[in-house]
Amino acid sequence: MASSTRAMSSLRAAQNIIAPRVITRASIATSTLARRAFTTTRPTTSLQARPNASSIVRSATLSRQFQRAYADAASQKRKPGKILTTFKWLWRLTYLSALGAIGAVIYAVYEDRNPQPQVQPDPTKKTLVVLGTGWGSVSLLKKLDTENYNVVVISPRNYFLFTPLLPSCTTGLIEHRSIMEPVRSIFQHRKAAVKFYEAEASSVDPDRKVVIITDNSEIQGDTSQTEIPYDMLVVGVGAENATFGIPGVRENSCFLKEIGDAQLIRKKIMDCVETAAFKGQTEEEIKRLLHMVVVGGGPTGVEFAGELQDFFEQDIKRLVPEIADRCKVTLIEALPNVLPSFSRQLIEYTENTFKEEKIDVLTKTMVKNVSDKTVEAVATRPDGTKETITIPYGLLVWATGNAVRPIVKDLISKIAAQKDSRRGLAVNEYLVVQGTRDIWAVGDCAVAGYAPTAQVAAQEGNFLARLFNNMAKTEALEARIHELSSSLNLKPGTNSADAAREIEECERKLRRIKDIKPFHYTHQGSLAYIGSEKAVADVSWWNGNIASHGSMTYLFWRSAYLSMCFSTRNRLLVSIDWLKSKMFGRDISRE
Amino acid sequence: MASSTRAMSSLRAAQNIIAPRVITRASIATSTLARRAFTTTRPTTSLQARPNASSIVRSATLSRQFQRAYADAASQKRKPGKILTTFKWLWRLTYLSALGAIGAVIYAVYEDRNPQPQVQPDPTKKTLVVLGTGWGSVSLLKKLDTENYNVVVISPRNYFLFTPLLPSCTTGLIEHRSIMEPVRSIFQHRKAAVKFYEAEASSVDPDRKVVIITDNSEIQGDTSQTEIPYDMLVVGVGAENATFGIPGVRENSCFLKEIGDAQLIRKKIMDCVETAAFKGQTEEEIKRLLHMVVVGGGPTGVEFAGELQDFFEQDIKRLVPEIADRCKVTLIEALPNVLPSFSRQLIEYTENTFKEEKIDVLTKTMVKNVSDKTVEAVATRPDGTKETITIPYGLLVWATGNAVRPIVKDLISKIAAQKDSRRGLAVNEYLVVQGTRDIWAVGDCAVAGYAPTAQVAAQEGNFLARLFNNMAKTEALEARIHELSSSLNLKPGTNSADAAREIEECERKLRRIKDIKPFHYTHQGSLAYIGSEKAVADVSWWNGNIASHGSMTYLFWRSAYLSMCFSTRNRLLVSIDWLKSKMFGRDISRE
Repeated sequence: MASSTRAMSSLRAAQNIIAPRVITRASIATSTLARRAFTTTRPTTSLQARPNASSIVRSATLSRQFQRAYADAASQKRKPGKILTTFKWLWRLTYLSALGAIGAVIYAVYEDRNPQPQVQPDPTKKTLVVLGTGWGSVSLLKKLDTENYNVVVISPRNYFLFTPLLPSCTTGLIEHRSIMEPVRSIFQHRKAAVKFYEAEASSVDPDRKVVIITDNSEIQGDTSQTEIPYDMLVVGVGAENATFGIPGVRENSCFLKEIGDAQLIRKKIMDCVETAAFKGQTEEEIKRLLHMVVVGGGPTGVEFAGELQDFFEQDIKRLVPEIADRCKVTLIEALPNVLPSFSRQLIEYTENTFKEEKIDVLTKTMVKNVSDKTVEAVATRPDGTKETITIPYGLLVWATGNAVRPIVKDLISKIAAQKDSRRGLAVNEYLVVQGTRDIWAVGDCAVAGYAPTAQVAAQEGNFLARLFNNMAKTEALEARIHELSSSLNLKPGTNSADAAREIEECERKLRRIKDIKPFHYTHQGSLAYIGSEKAVADVSWWNGNIASHGSMTYLFWRSAYLSMCFSTRNRLLVSIDWLKSKMFGRDISRE
Repeated sequence: MASSTRAMSSLRAAQNIIAPRVITRASIATSTLARRAFTTTRPTTSLQARPNASSIVRSATLSRQFQRAYADAASQKRKPGKILTTFKWLWRLTYLSALGAIGAVIYAVYEDRNPQPQVQPDPTKKTLVVLGTGWGSVSLLKKLDTENYNVVVISPRNYFLFTPLLPSCTTGLIEHRSIMEPVRSIFQHRKAAVKFYEAEASSVDPDRKVVIITDNSEIQGDTSQTEIPYDMLVVGVGAENATFGIPGVRENSCFLKEIGDAQLIRKKIMDCVETAAFKGQTEEEIKRLLHMVVVGGGPTGVEFAGELQDFFEQDIKRLVPEIADRCKVTLIEALPNVLPSFSRQLIEYTENTFKEEKIDVLTKTMVKNVSDKTVEAVATRPDGTKETITIPYGLLVWATGNAVRPIVKDLISKIAAQKDSRRGLAVNEYLVVQGTRDIWAVGDCAVAGYAPTAQVAAQEGNFLARLFNNMAKTEALEARIHELSSSLNLKPGTNSADAAREIEECERKLRRIKDIKPFHYTHQGSLAYIGSEKAVADVSWWNGNIASHGSMTYLFWRSAYLSMCFSTRNRLLVSIDWLKSKMFGRDISRE
């Protein structure tokens, strides 16, 4: 691999640069010391060189003689010395920490570029098919002992997307590729090779135990549909956007689920701005074009509204001043308040911050109809009276509701026990799809009684990984026991005692393993960015919960998301993007 | 501007960090010196403190007494000292240059974020309308004294694109936004404000002196077409892709002119790879899907072929090993060799390098017909016989030929003197469109007898900027003369002498200015990347020309392009991208 070797050599080069520096630091001290020895302090050095009673006495008297003078000199010189020393240490600290960081990155990159050679999948083992490359599936694959199965992953998306930062991509604060990680480079670091097919799972046949996959991408080969047989199946296909059958939503609004959505929104925002700046555009039309309406007061909607307002305040004001003052963001929520999953005080804080940022929040407002230029909604007034309002918009973003994907619908229809499932595949406490023995479901397509969040999906994925690793161990032990006992029956005597002992041993191990607890979700907290460098956070602590908000919380939000990023690469890229936007502002090119 | 002030404070912070460091360096020395004074060298200090004849004598004798010992000590210690000193200076050098670089970037960013307040355009002045935001137009606008005119810029692209690095974007070596610069941030730094309309100029009326502009983007306002009157018009709309009427080209091939093209190609390459890796794909079909055909042996085609091969070698081999060995790049050129504009030896070097890289080069081969899966071409054998070959492909990139844009065709049809123009607007030696008095043309849409390259367009733009700046001065002087002479006629006597002198003065200035030479293109050289970290360069030197190739030339290629980048932002982003790809490889996510 030309590039990787090149990369390594460059890394070594880097290390060579660093190593000498460290020496150099020392060298400066020693060398200066050395030089002094040959210059100012000749007598002293010479004394050290050959001890001589008389001279020592003399110098001693000298020193006593001039103690006072020395004391004066000292009192004059000490103070600056101290300050400078602190400076020195401060500098050394920053310097060393910088070195440390560089070292860490270099190591991470080395690890990334030099994966261990992989075991090839062994056909005698069970085939585990995983559908999807979202939070659930990827968390599973990250923890799974791939040696124990032939793992096949199927998804129309050949990358993992770090969804929490998606709203930042819509304004170009973060470039979309900074939060994407190709699944192939993830699988490269597993013990045994993982097969990946970029395709859509169009249907599952639980009786024949096969998944039918189709390549729906633009470029298709002669073979664009085929079957994948499975022994165990994990469904982690997520959900699609729900429009609740409101007319005009699908045709006229943007969603915010996939990377393509974020790119489209980014392009449309600038299209609205440029169209508003077109010569001879009427005032009313400018207002419409620059009115961005967000439907859905969940974290996604709130974060998007905040990012959008930041974009207008920080960049459009600077670069398109002639129309900037007409930019407006409105958030529509059907419930009585935004961020329903957050604690009361944070909801109030968010709504107040939005007021300061001049983001209109229309709560208790239900969208009824969407045309290409207006949203028709019914607002409930404080006195309970209802009122139909028409809101002209330039860009409409639909950030609410999950709907069941066709493949999941299809699977539900094929399993008798799922006949009442509406919101997804009903699973038991081990995430087994009810009515099946060898199908599991994770994430938004599974109904386990939790909110459809990345956090839940990730924990479910981790749980399944543990479960499958244990199952593999169990089967291995059972096989061993079977083998031993049969050998006992065949030729008793001689080593029967050892065999018996080993069987016992295996059985003890078995008991220990089998005892695995059902899935239990532990909520770590909720975070949301609300614009103008403020964030809100509900963080679980012991049995309680800490609610915090403001600029410090914003820093916490950033560091939390940075640490949650999938890879060092993602972390580095996201940090660079943040720095970049800070330095140069966001890129307003419409592309 | 919240962000810009924040940015500044952060910059100040950065400076504060740096400043103390500089002190610190000094402080380390002084403080150590100080400390020594209080420790090892007590006697010496005290001596300095109160001169005392006898003691001086004593110490003198001491020193003489132990000269030898000291000499030995020295001879033991010198050698390491020297090495360490060199290290020390080496380190200081790197350290200071790093500081310098940081300082430069900080300054550039500061400049970028804090443009001078702009003069608002003054309606009494002439209106200069510029069509396009490519090399020609942007070079013009960069050098133009915008105070002298009401400048209006019209383009469907609200950014400048650094086209030379476009081939690198197709594989993700460079992210496309790293080579884009929003025109609004360019205009922000001109003395007087520049109006920009994101629209397509659909037609020009030379008699009424108006340009009709249309907003063809997805989002349109009530007003999506209007007229822009002009006093002076510069046409810099460039050219579109020529298919030479070969059937199937437009439907089945990708071009490589705009950023959208690069993104599409990047997406399609990965689509081909993933489709080839689809389960049960036949060997033959895999070969077809992974066969990338490039038509056109000019710099663009050659660089793209090179980048593509790099991508397969460096990343696909690493991440999709199962099919990587079937990846194949073929370059088709109708002429007898690639890079016709380069010198013989470089052409040979390129063709040999391509052989080593296993890139097939089919010269003297004319594409006749393109279907969705095959290219039909006629190859001329060395013996002159012709042969029709059919080449199955997965991705076809059409990197040859320029065609005239509709707006230019329309303009040609309206100007009698242009009736024979086929390849663009015929211009005179001052780039004035022949048959007009107030229309100029630059870049690929102008026929001035030069190759359609960025270099030519940029020089033409600079020339026009100089020309227009002079015209403005001239008019100002002429106006002044007119005014003075009329005043002379009105009330002769008193200050008539001064007036006469000033008139003379103005006329002298006028003569000096008027004397502006016609446009002359000076070729600075041609550069092309040819893959596997090799490049070829023909650089003009004095009256001669230096031809160089290989890895060093590749470094030259990189530094040349980096220095040619539009802004510090672009330079920084491109460098980061190069570093990123070196560290993590290219991102193979299909998006």
